Amino acid sequence: MPAPIEALRAHLAPIEDLKAAAAVLRWDQETHMPDGGAEARAQQLSTLQSTAHERFVAEETGALLDQAAEALDAPAPLDPDAALVRVTRRDYERAVRVPSSLVAELSKATSQAQQAWTQARQNDDFSRFAPHLERLVELSVEKAEAIGYEDEPYDALLAEYEPGRTTAEVASLFDTLRSDLVPIVDAIAEAPPIDDSVLRGSYPQSDQRAFGRSVIADFGYDFDRGRQDVSAHPFTTAFSPDDVRLTTRYDEDNVASALFSTIHEAGHGLYEQGIAPSLDRTPLGDGTALSTHESQARLWENHIGRSRPFWRHYLPRLKDAFPDALGDAALEPFYRAINRVTPSLIRVEADEVTYHLHVMLRFELGRGLIDGSVSVNDLPARWNDAMDTYLGVVPETDANGVLQDVHWSQGAFGYFPTYTLGTLTAAQLMEAIQNDLPGLPEHIAEGRFGPLLDWLRTHLHQHGRVLDAPDLLERATGKALSTGAWLRYARDKFGALYSL
Amino acid sequence: MPAPIEALRAHLAPIEDLKAAAAVLRWDQETHMPDGGAEARAQQLSTLQSTAHERFVAEETGALLDQAAEALDAPAPLDPDAALVRVTRRDYERAVRVPSSLVAELSKATSQAQQAWTQARQNDDFSRFAPHLERLVELSVEKAEAIGYEDEPYDALLAEYEPGRTTAEVASLFDTLRSDLVPIVDAIAEAPPIDDSVLRGSYPQSDQRAFGRSVIADFGYDFDRGRQDVSAHPFTTAFSPDDVRLTTRYDEDNVASALFSTIHEAGHGLYEQGIAPSLDRTPLGDGTALSTHESQARLWENHIGRSRPFWRHYLPRLKDAFPDALGDAALEPFYRAINRVTPSLIRVEADEVTYHLHVMLRFELGRGLIDGSVSVNDLPARWNDAMDTYLGVVPETDANGVLQDVHWSQGAFGYFPTYTLGTLTAAQLMEAIQNDLPGLPEHIAEGRFGPLLDWLRTHLHQHGRVLDAPDLLERATGKALSTGAWLRYARDKFGALYSL
Repeated sequence: MPAPIEALRAHLAPIEDLKAAAAVLRWDQETHMPDGGAEARAQQLSTLQSTAHERFVAEETGALLDQAAEALDAPAPLDPDAALVRVTRRDYERAVRVPSSLVAELSKATSQAQQAWTQARQNDDFSRFAPHLERLVELSVEKAEAIGYEDEPYDALLAEYEPGRTTAEVASLFDTLRSDLVPIVDAIAEAPPIDDSVLRGSYPQSDQRAFGRSVIADFGYDFDRGRQDVSAHPFTTAFSPDDVRLTTRYDEDNVASALFSTIHEAGHGLYEQGIAPSLDRTPLGDGTALSTHESQARLWENHIGRSRPFWRHYLPRLKDAFPDALGDAALEPFYRAINRVTPSLIRVEADEVTYHLHVMLRFELGRGLIDGSVSVNDLPARWNDAMDTYLGVVPETDANGVLQDVHWSQGAFGYFPTYTLGTLTAAQLMEAIQNDLPGLPEHIAEGRFGPLLDWLRTHLHQHGRVLDAPDLLERATGKALSTGAWLRYARDKFGALYSL
Repeated sequence: MPAPIEALRAHLAPIEDLKAAAAVLRWDQETHMPDGGAEARAQQLSTLQSTAHERFVAEETGALLDQAAEALDAPAPLDPDAALVRVTRRDYERAVRVPSSLVAELSKATSQAQQAWTQARQNDDFSRFAPHLERLVELSVEKAEAIGYEDEPYDALLAEYEPGRTTAEVASLFDTLRSDLVPIVDAIAEAPPIDDSVLRGSYPQSDQRAFGRSVIADFGYDFDRGRQDVSAHPFTTAFSPDDVRLTTRYDEDNVASALFSTIHEAGHGLYEQGIAPSLDRTPLGDGTALSTHESQARLWENHIGRSRPFWRHYLPRLKDAFPDALGDAALEPFYRAINRVTPSLIRVEADEVTYHLHVMLRFELGRGLIDGSVSVNDLPARWNDAMDTYLGVVPETDANGVLQDVHWSQGAFGYFPTYTLGTLTAAQLMEAIQNDLPGLPEHIAEGRFGPLLDWLRTHLHQHGRVLDAPDLLERATGKALSTGAWLRYARDKFGALYSL
């Protein structure tokens, strides 16, 4: 008879296989599937998800967890067996508390809401989406009540993406950040704007692709254990640490768009490729929180990819790749162009400074929807007011305003704050890294990323979900998450760029 | 409570979803998966297959089949409900008779045998493969005994691919065919050889791809419900009638190789795209037998793609696509080149006349392995003797002889004869089609394939597995399968080409 922990692993492994299979089907859907395949694919995915869910919420899982817990020694903090029991128990409790009737209703409602959202956005008609959003809010509150929470229902939803963090903690971090950030944004808005016209020109897709691939290969992204394809919205997905796939999209008139998206997704991909193989086919073989995942994307994208040392190495190479469009480009104007800050309407196009204000606005409104202080009908007006207050710009259409993001139509309340938490995490990690690797700027200027990747592998990647995000960050940096590091980084970098 | 037939459908649909998901994962494995993904993919596929198998062999399936059978009215021949019960019952009986321990042993043995075969072929060392083949023969006989058969164990294995046909029937057809075919091959071998040097030259892959796609789009292959990728071995796979994918491979020195492979796979693909949508997510939503599938591939490849009217239309277009390599090509020499017959060592490179002899040899030896009249150790010598007798050529290495095909290493005894059965079926269908569509040669010469595809859709494609291959052919052509139509076609075509 196998040891209880082995029995638990043997029970969980095929569930992870089914989830990985679903991820393959979703990847195919976004990258290669012909249009005709959509209906059958939805059914295949639904079957894979419900089969995995049924196996996971089975009483057998609970019994195996109990037996494994009994058999555990007093756990050391990084003991993978103890972590397996703890994390799986938490996932299991969440899963069994939500009645299967509610799971089915949510699945149906989100599917309808996404169709309605697509049409509402195309027609700039919020009223088409409103009743669906109301229904999703209602069902999400019901889900939160079923799961349980300490202070407010949003806690239960946030915990899906950020186990170990509370809404109040996020709100407090965001309050600090906002009060420090708004004056910076105001000052930048009054400074002379940066000219970023150098980024625009004619940049053939095939050359952009080759350049982007060479950059992330330099980072250490392993193309023998991954690949890059084109999709409408860039994403990263992993079927195992040895099969981690990125997507991007190309704008042939702009050299920066696909490159930074490629670097961003490679940050996610390096995390997944770095998870310890021993965690594969267990619930621990994944990023520990969305904020941790996002921190890796933002670290490579902003702290590395938008840094002066990086372009000292890569600008000559980029000019070789695009001699016609970039033959005259000089380092300093190019560095300024890729770091231009300007308040704008669309989150996904925002710079790294104003991005936080887009996120905060969504966090506040989303939290309000869930606690009942914001009604769906008031949402467009509340959105536009907040845009005016935070960014000084107001969308002329709801399509470019409250309807721009897919998240709420997916019922993903609790998701938005992870973007800013991830950015704060990245900055805090970078301070620790700079402390441990004083030669880092020189490494980067030589195109050498091995020491940085080793640090990330050692302190973060390998652990998968063995540690929750707060513990992981505290172990890696010696501190709890705060806004300090990011504000120091932003004041330093953008203060110099805008002579503040 | 749903009607029993609906309950049966609801039970079977997610099983079909799991099988479709496995097909997506296999497609990805052959076309896009990075090398690193192999180990995880094998586990994911194993989980999907065993999950689908467990659900199918569950007692619930048997109970639902009983209830549905009771509720059926006296069945009309094309009644899909009756066919569903009949075909699913047959699949179910086959599946439950094979003990799960034997399923597991066969799965393990084939996986080991395929590795051994790859190495044996690379090293031209049959002895490395021999013990694995012996084990597979042993387990396959055990499987045949478990399933049951009327005359000989090979019947039970053949029935996996050709329900409704017996080994004796196949042997009798092949005896007739061989005695008529060998003199034709001998006469061709004595005739002056055809010059096919026009096919060789410089043919860039991207232009080959564009031309092949335009041809099969003309046939009616729907790229909104399919796509074409590159893989080491061409194949066709379907995830639903609305997502049917082809693969091919390109030889930039030969214009014919990828084109006929593309046409061949499109024949398979048109069949899958033509199956009635109402059969989707049931065991009926598939080709009815491998021979029927192969008939569609061979019909488009040989009867259409290697015909004079076809090239009357397409040769000018091919010359436009490759003006440097083909500028001077004339219809008659080109038509002769693509129909060159020459005895050769490798089945997959054989012409449409000698191909049958490769198949017969494999059928006879495979049948002998299963009934014990051929021993594994004698196999290389038996192979070379038969090659000499049938084709007058003898391989100098086992790699180019008995080790050339993957099928036996997959335990797929019973598969080879379907190639020739399919070719005979194609010829018999073509006689019926020419009778119903006397204007067909003119249609083809105008690049109009609608009437032909309509005929195939009406008489074959739409029915999926509602009719077994013998019934389907009898309904479509009014006759049982025989060698007559193919021999008339071959004598007519190759008699003229070689002035016999």
